[in-house]
Amino acid sequence: MSLVVKKFGGTSVANLDKIRGVVKRVSTARSSWERIIVVVSAMAGETDKLIRFAHALSPQPVGREMDLLLTSGERIASSLLAIALDAAGIPAISLTGGQAGILTEGAHTRARVRSIRPARILKELNGGKVVVAAGFQGVDEFDEETTLGRGGSDLTAVALAAALEADRCEIYTDVDGVYTADPRIVPDAKRMEQISFEEMMELASLGAKVLQARSVDLAAKYDLPLVVRSAFDEGEGTLIIPESTGIESPAVRGVSCDSKQSKLTISAVPDRPGIAAALFGQLAEKSIMVDMIVQNVSENSLTDISITVNSDMAQHAEQIMVESNESFGGATISRDDDIAKVSVVGVGMKSQAGVAARVFSALARSRINIMMISTSEISISVVVRQADSENAVRVLHKEFIG
Amino acid sequence: MSLVVKKFGGTSVANLDKIRGVVKRVSTARSSWERIIVVVSAMAGETDKLIRFAHALSPQPVGREMDLLLTSGERIASSLLAIALDAAGIPAISLTGGQAGILTEGAHTRARVRSIRPARILKELNGGKVVVAAGFQGVDEFDEETTLGRGGSDLTAVALAAALEADRCEIYTDVDGVYTADPRIVPDAKRMEQISFEEMMELASLGAKVLQARSVDLAAKYDLPLVVRSAFDEGEGTLIIPESTGIESPAVRGVSCDSKQSKLTISAVPDRPGIAAALFGQLAEKSIMVDMIVQNVSENSLTDISITVNSDMAQHAEQIMVESNESFGGATISRDDDIAKVSVVGVGMKSQAGVAARVFSALARSRINIMMISTSEISISVVVRQADSENAVRVLHKEFIG
Repeated sequence: MSLVVKKFGGTSVANLDKIRGVVKRVSTARSSWERIIVVVSAMAGETDKLIRFAHALSPQPVGREMDLLLTSGERIASSLLAIALDAAGIPAISLTGGQAGILTEGAHTRARVRSIRPARILKELNGGKVVVAAGFQGVDEFDEETTLGRGGSDLTAVALAAALEADRCEIYTDVDGVYTADPRIVPDAKRMEQISFEEMMELASLGAKVLQARSVDLAAKYDLPLVVRSAFDEGEGTLIIPESTGIESPAVRGVSCDSKQSKLTISAVPDRPGIAAALFGQLAEKSIMVDMIVQNVSENSLTDISITVNSDMAQHAEQIMVESNESFGGATISRDDDIAKVSVVGVGMKSQAGVAARVFSALARSRINIMMISTSEISISVVVRQADSENAVRVLHKEFIG
Repeated sequence: MSLVVKKFGGTSVANLDKIRGVVKRVSTARSSWERIIVVVSAMAGETDKLIRFAHALSPQPVGREMDLLLTSGERIASSLLAIALDAAGIPAISLTGGQAGILTEGAHTRARVRSIRPARILKELNGGKVVVAAGFQGVDEFDEETTLGRGGSDLTAVALAAALEADRCEIYTDVDGVYTADPRIVPDAKRMEQISFEEMMELASLGAKVLQARSVDLAAKYDLPLVVRSAFDEGEGTLIIPESTGIESPAVRGVSCDSKQSKLTISAVPDRPGIAAALFGQLAEKSIMVDMIVQNVSENSLTDISITVNSDMAQHAEQIMVESNESFGGATISRDDDIAKVSVVGVGMKSQAGVAARVFSALARSRINIMMISTSEISISVVVRQADSENAVRVLHKEFIG
């Protein structure tokens, strides 16, 4: 029996009219799918309101209480949707994270999914009901409520789809798919009909923000076809699949930009083993996620190491590096917040040489200075001044996509 | 170890400032009590908002979904209070109905408490925490969420206090106690320092609305001292106890008035056994709660039966009686919505004769016509015209209380 999991974000259930819109979508989908699971986020604004309340009452609200507080948003949205489906003659039942069998680790506010206990969902699906699962939440081994972190409803949808071997998982959002670049920067940007998991992973983590990277990773692991599409129109969206089907993929599929980056440089470090390890060990211990890392060629046994981190963490990271520096002796720490990271991504790069050269010369022709370079098998990222970033995206989009 | 259960209603946690007010009360209470359980309702207005949403989406929302929807309100209030207590340096944990071990029957939207499984609460109390329990909710044997009906948070508080053998249960509300009459009608009305369970039961079910009758009943069953007091001032409130302590209780403790009553009369019924049974059987089957029942002395083997019901149900009750009447033949059904029920209540009536006579003569002196009379061991109720009801309350309050 065919099974689809459809996930609707907060803007798709923001008010009663939008909830009625979801009912219409589910009603239509019943002619194509034998079994349907709907995963919902909290009504737009509700989670932020509850977070604001909690922070007004406490500078550091306890994680366990935050989880119990925030899961209410998704519970409300899922019951309301079940009520609306039932009123439209579609048998439906809403299930909380615990009832839906989503078991997680105990780490509050950012729990990882441990396993899915599918008995209850299967019973309801087999009874002919549309199951409406509250996203973003689960329970730990002691039956304590947990949440999966921001964007966690995507993860709920993908995890349920993987566990129940759904035919596909559809993420409804306020954009109509994944684009070759941000259409606000590049008006010519095109919606991609298909993209590979690998490419989507690079785009998601490089700032495309359409899909949470953890969810793409999980879908890839289970070879689960994932679709990103608009909740508000009938477009086909973008299909994310194990491998692009074209025999010759284009070298570059998309161009992304992340302006929320800061660059930290530790200059004139003695170039001997163990120093980088000590530095990054300190950062990891304080949960600072390092994005790009570039080490310059050493001169006179001294070397420069530059890293980029999310701007929110830049000050904290700088402080840690200054403290570490005391043990190296004599190095200089500098921080630069006026940067952006621009990346080109495409599985085709694997087999096509010269992409890097084309990136550099295209940017040079437009007199855009490159401050750092980092490459992976399927992406090339450059750090540029923030003032140059939008132009860099346009130049690279024109160069590779048109 | 001493234990108190304190219940705060929706107006007492209506906003963040009020929640901080509850924190102060709990903080003060810690010097008098070794263990504290706080039960909270949803923030004022939240439950009504969710009900409005559900009814906008469906003419008849499914009970199971309503319960899942509405329990969120109390969960939010209890987590926020736990966060605020913790921020004030008071170790606290919030528990949902299920976590607090409140097991109910499966009847959604009006479940009865079946038993309390106290292990988790005891563990948290023994660990030195203030337990904040979400009111109004429980789980049934299948772990489905249930609600206890309107006013159910009082019941949560009393049930927990009874099961854990608390020293007392305090109900914080927006009035500062139980009065000898409604102070809006009788400016001289006095707050009672003590009242017996029996008297409170009569007053609660006769329309005093301070405490839900089911909660008083449960507290009486377990001899649990219950206090009604203001959430907004420091008054002592009213203590509700097994028996009034005075050796000679006054005949009348309070005067109450219920204007939401309608009178239904079936006239000229053949006076033979079984007819009343058939009529009330029909009403009970349709869940119509009958309040007063008066059958007149029969003449020529014909009799009149008058009943009063809540005005909300009057039309439905009339319809049922008209249908039943077809099988009796020849009787007339009439309905009168312009009535009110005024009652005097007091355990002392048991031993003092002549209270009824004083009621009737006091009303007669003020030319208030009595339409129906009904008595119990500790109360006398009369039905009068609505226009006369407030005056009747004042006259009777003056006659018996002063």
